[in-house]
Amino acid sequence: MLTAEGCPKTMLSIRDALEAVEGRWKLLILFALAQSPKRFKQLAKEVPGITDKTLSKELKSLESNKLVQRNVYDTFPPTVQYSITAHGKSLEKVIEELHYWGLAHRREIMGK
Amino acid sequence: MLTAEGCPKTMLSIRDALEAVEGRWKLLILFALAQSPKRFKQLAKEVPGITDKTLSKELKSLESNKLVQRNVYDTFPPTVQYSITAHGKSLEKVIEELHYWGLAHRREIMGK
Repeated sequence: MLTAEGCPKTMLSIRDALEAVEGRWKLLILFALAQSPKRFKQLAKEVPGITDKTLSKELKSLESNKLVQRNVYDTFPPTVQYSITAHGKSLEKVIEELHYWGLAHRREIMGK
Repeated sequence: MLTAEGCPKTMLSIRDALEAVEGRWKLLILFALAQSPKRFKQLAKEVPGITDKTLSKELKSLESNKLVQRNVYDTFPPTVQYSITAHGKSLEKVIEELHYWGLAHRREIMGK
C-alpha cells in the first residue's frame, strides 16, 4: 500500500472507511450495540455523555451506512430497537488493526 | 473487539490511530514520501491542491507523531529533505485494512 503503486486510486476506499468510523461517537455506539440490540433510551444511557439529539443523528448516519439496523416491532405502542448489522460487525478487523497500531504508536511517542 | 469486553478501554488507542491518519492530507503526504524522500517543493508538487502553509503544518504534525523525519544536510545552502520513518511505514497494515473494508463498504452501500 505504502509503495510506489499505492497512491491516490486507493484513497477513495480509505476515505470511505475513515468516514464510517470517525468522530467521537460512532465506535462507542457500535461497541454498545455489539453486546446486544438496544432501545434508544438504553443506548443513550450506555454511551456516556451523548445527548439525545446527537445520538439520533449518529444513528441515522450509521443506518444510512448500513452499519446499524432500526427495527420496529408490531406492539402497542410500537417498540423500536437498534442492532448492529453483519456489515457493522465486519468493521471488527479494521478496528483491531487501529487498536494495535494505536498501542504501538503510544509506545513510540512516549519512548517506551 | 466488537464484543462484550471490547468497550472503552480500547478507545484511546483507536482514537490515537485515527488521529494519525485523519484529514485530507496526511495519507497523501505519506504515500508521496513512501516512494522516496523529498524536498518541500517536490512534495508540494506531488500532493495536488495542497498549499505551502498547510503542507508545512501537516509535516510538523507528522513529524511530532514520528511518522515523518526532517533531515537537514550540511550543504551550502543547507538542504532539507523529508522521509517516512519505520514507524510511518508500520501504518501499512492499518491502511490496507481500511482500504479493503472501504471497498466492501462501497459494494454494500451501492448494492452491488
